[in-house]
Amino acid sequence: MKEFFNVVTLNDVIQHTSCFPQMPIETIDITQSLGRIIAEDIIAQSPLPEFPRATMDGYAVYSASTFGASESNPALLSVVDTIEMGKTSKHPIQKGEAARISTGGMLPEGADCVVMIEHTEIIDNYTIEVYKSAAPLQHMMEPGEDIYKGQHLIKCGTKLKSSSIGLLSALGLYQIKVYKKPCIAIISTGDELVPIHENPPSGKIRDINSYSLSALIQELGAHPIMMGIIHDDFDSLYSTCLSALKKTDMVIISGGSSVGVRDLTIDVIQAIKGAQIFCHGVSIRPGKPTILAQINNQALWGLPGQVTSAMIVFRIIVQPFIEHISGVKLTDKRSYKMPATLTRNIASVQGRTDFVRVKLFYENNQLWADPIIGKSGFIQSIASADGLITIDMNVEGLNKGDDVWIDIL
Amino acid sequence: MKEFFNVVTLNDVIQHTSCFPQMPIETIDITQSLGRIIAEDIIAQSPLPEFPRATMDGYAVYSASTFGASESNPALLSVVDTIEMGKTSKHPIQKGEAARISTGGMLPEGADCVVMIEHTEIIDNYTIEVYKSAAPLQHMMEPGEDIYKGQHLIKCGTKLKSSSIGLLSALGLYQIKVYKKPCIAIISTGDELVPIHENPPSGKIRDINSYSLSALIQELGAHPIMMGIIHDDFDSLYSTCLSALKKTDMVIISGGSSVGVRDLTIDVIQAIKGAQIFCHGVSIRPGKPTILAQINNQALWGLPGQVTSAMIVFRIIVQPFIEHISGVKLTDKRSYKMPATLTRNIASVQGRTDFVRVKLFYENNQLWADPIIGKSGFIQSIASADGLITIDMNVEGLNKGDDVWIDIL
Repeated sequence: MKEFFNVVTLNDVIQHTSCFPQMPIETIDITQSLGRIIAEDIIAQSPLPEFPRATMDGYAVYSASTFGASESNPALLSVVDTIEMGKTSKHPIQKGEAARISTGGMLPEGADCVVMIEHTEIIDNYTIEVYKSAAPLQHMMEPGEDIYKGQHLIKCGTKLKSSSIGLLSALGLYQIKVYKKPCIAIISTGDELVPIHENPPSGKIRDINSYSLSALIQELGAHPIMMGIIHDDFDSLYSTCLSALKKTDMVIISGGSSVGVRDLTIDVIQAIKGAQIFCHGVSIRPGKPTILAQINNQALWGLPGQVTSAMIVFRIIVQPFIEHISGVKLTDKRSYKMPATLTRNIASVQGRTDFVRVKLFYENNQLWADPIIGKSGFIQSIASADGLITIDMNVEGLNKGDDVWIDIL
Repeated sequence: MKEFFNVVTLNDVIQHTSCFPQMPIETIDITQSLGRIIAEDIIAQSPLPEFPRATMDGYAVYSASTFGASESNPALLSVVDTIEMGKTSKHPIQKGEAARISTGGMLPEGADCVVMIEHTEIIDNYTIEVYKSAAPLQHMMEPGEDIYKGQHLIKCGTKLKSSSIGLLSALGLYQIKVYKKPCIAIISTGDELVPIHENPPSGKIRDINSYSLSALIQELGAHPIMMGIIHDDFDSLYSTCLSALKKTDMVIISGGSSVGVRDLTIDVIQAIKGAQIFCHGVSIRPGKPTILAQINNQALWGLPGQVTSAMIVFRIIVQPFIEHISGVKLTDKRSYKMPATLTRNIASVQGRTDFVRVKLFYENNQLWADPIIGKSGFIQSIASADGLITIDMNVEGLNKGDDVWIDIL
């Protein structure tokens, strides 16, 4: 029997990620940019708003005209103008004057605040009473109050969400630089695999990994390329790997990464010219039979053939790697672990990082994490899981009632 | 001045959602199904696994052959077969016999467990020693142990994630029924708006809402259709609404939903034949000027023109609505609010539901929610927010140190 020859810790693999380069950059239209990783710093070239803007419907006034106004002693103002939306007013406001204005309208010269319509009464077409003293800058935004010229708004390496797209459109940035999406090849190995549209004869199973890994890759905004099922044959796996390395940015082989008699992946990788094997075995459970090799600037992963192990290794190790090559600055990653309370004791072993599938539920205004029992290979156990708990390699186990942090699946 | 004529509570609007029908159904390929809403119950037509499967590399044995085995008193077994992956064995296992097997291999008749390779030693080509007693069913899965025939696996109305796709492929379901994605028209109204690739002259601003609402719609997996900028003109808005209703499943108008002089949306909706206005005003902040009308089976929304209000109303009210028509069973929704601790007091008013933008940070092994200060219209305030706190209409405010539940933005 062969052995894992280079078992590393979880932290070692994650650290190694930075040895790989990020994707090249392309320019795209803002309408295509949701979820993309921006490849430039966004700095405001002009202030926002660019002019004094009303944030309420009402009257633009010079605040001092209303000082001391109250229900019993209203201020009487002359309505001298109606400001049209999107237009500038030609009529500067003097003390004692007011101009009708809508939310978003531009304040005329001389006005330094807006009086809400609710605090006024119309006396006639040319006169209003104001019942409340208005403070300067009330219900308006000054130029540059939201965003000042030169303000750093979005950092290179940020994943764009809807509010980032709002920000970009406010600044008129309708074309932006982003990192290209990586293309990722998936190779499923194993003599026991049949395509999913076939009925597997006894002893064989359907190729689940091509589809579940493909979906995980899509979730990250990358392009999966299914290379199909490769049987346990050195030459086929070797030539498929070379062709996958040529046409994609990264390769994932699932199956054949263990140390059984038939495990070809490591032999094939060793045979590829220039391949440096960073790890053959990671001290985690599930997922020990994980391989990471570097071939020029490309990564080649060997993942366990077992679907649940493959999916967990993907989530824990391959996902941050893909995010890195996709351009995400990992330190700026906006993802949160969910705090919850454990319902039961979980045993673990020191020297190995364990990942435990849990179901989440609310009870007594608290979030509870309930470990899923059953054999770890059950596909049902991952399909029904809401999240993962990580048990650190220096911890012997967790107790019922412990506070835990959940990665949502 | 006009007035809101039908102000309802947040709960009223959400309840009204169920008056609208769900989208029709289409059949798609599994590779296109990530994030789609399944329109059928998935019930296993065959068990999984279909045959007894090894979950470890080792030897398939009859467990009783190893009873009492230990380091000092190993059991001696004859290796009578090597089971090839994906094949059935012709050699039934008797007491005292073993067959080499790899993870995923099919157990031969007579074997009821797998002995891990780590607990054995090879004596010669035909003999091994086993150092540990093996229990029946150890390191193997029985037929149907993961999934039994007839088991309900995925409920109609579930959003498909990567592990659901793993489950579907395991069952050979390469084509599935899903709800069609809704097409949603976005109309931006206002004389102050210019297209985002133009430099706005004084008094005008760029049309931010078309882009931010479009991104929010994309995030939900629906299709946004931008109808462009419509100026404050009854006839243009009326004819654009009719054409949008004809070619899409739902219409969102942003701007013109308030009660100012120029607010046309409500007038236009009232003029549309068959339009029933469910609300004109919702007791929330921000976002009071929100309109929901029903025209035949379609929804027409009026959202505030202010970008931050429009985005918050979308998140809180329009998003669950779109999820409903997209087929999501709201009761089964797997989304979690994040528990956090408030850093400061927040004032609120009874009789109105308030939404407060917060930034999140970890400190002392705790998640803290820090309310964002500044005028509510700042686009920066929503772009920099990590989440929203809801302050219920029956609550007067929240105190520093309170436990709060965060909707992640």
